[in-house]
Amino acid sequence: MKRKTKLLALLIISTVVISCSNNQKEEEDMNTNEKSLSVFPLGDPGSSDWFTGEVHVQGLVNPDQIEGLYSVGQVTFEPGSKTNWHTHPAGQVLLVTEGRGWYQERGKPAQELIKGSVVAIPKDIEHWHGASKETKLVHIAISNVKDNSAVTWLAPVNDEEYDSVDK
Amino acid sequence: MKRKTKLLALLIISTVVISCSNNQKEEEDMNTNEKSLSVFPLGDPGSSDWFTGEVHVQGLVNPDQIEGLYSVGQVTFEPGSKTNWHTHPAGQVLLVTEGRGWYQERGKPAQELIKGSVVAIPKDIEHWHGASKETKLVHIAISNVKDNSAVTWLAPVNDEEYDSVDK
Repeated sequence: MKRKTKLLALLIISTVVISCSNNQKEEEDMNTNEKSLSVFPLGDPGSSDWFTGEVHVQGLVNPDQIEGLYSVGQVTFEPGSKTNWHTHPAGQVLLVTEGRGWYQERGKPAQELIKGSVVAIPKDIEHWHGASKETKLVHIAISNVKDNSAVTWLAPVNDEEYDSVDK
Repeated sequence: MKRKTKLLALLIISTVVISCSNNQKEEEDMNTNEKSLSVFPLGDPGSSDWFTGEVHVQGLVNPDQIEGLYSVGQVTFEPGSKTNWHTHPAGQVLLVTEGRGWYQERGKPAQELIKGSVVAIPKDIEHWHGASKETKLVHIAISNVKDNSAVTWLAPVNDEEYDSVDK
């Protein structure tokens, strides 16, 4: 009888522990899902002419929808990916919605980007932005248009430049 | 001895169950927190001259940071709250980041807004936007500036108008 009771106790404990850990697994799956869902769809792969690493761009507003003033898009940088150096003839605004990364103007210290960061990029300033090595970065970009152009692309950010920012 | 074993088993089961439900409580608290945190801070109460109900506005970019082109802000509408009717002299873009609500141009059917909705509002079109009755709405607004103005405010949306949209 003593042995039967022990066995019964073990069975009950095992059931409770398995049920508990199953619930936690479901919670974790839901959390991962929730966290990986950005506000907008992922969009299309960014061109390797303009980006290093895995980047996706989702167009949200075309200039012809809004008096030719700007385009709006969501850019998703996987860990370690980034834009080339570039300039905007009429400036750009970045609104960071997820993750962690960097914004750097040529010759200046980099600025850390996290969820909620806002950057108003002046016109004609050479700069790059992208994810940190360990974490992806998602931002909305409002790219102002001048003479039918919103960006002038330059050289890729090399490993030495990136490593000096994300040490 | 049989009684001691039963007591021991009960004690172990209770400990496991309590520990399990505590973990779940913590997970739930974290989830609730995660879901209620918008991308940007809530900001300041919106003026009752321009909104009906509880609305908060967080300024993100001023026109003087971006060549005078536009302002950018986050607007949070609690359930049932909305803008007055209004027009924009150079248009506006809405990017919905959370919740559910409505956009309506004068004389047209309302358009449902959910997370991920994008609206490019033409210049000089009378319209309103706001939350549904049951769910809050959070959107980013890019408000284009013309002659130092981004909006002309008109009459509040009356209950009949709102009820005919959110039935």
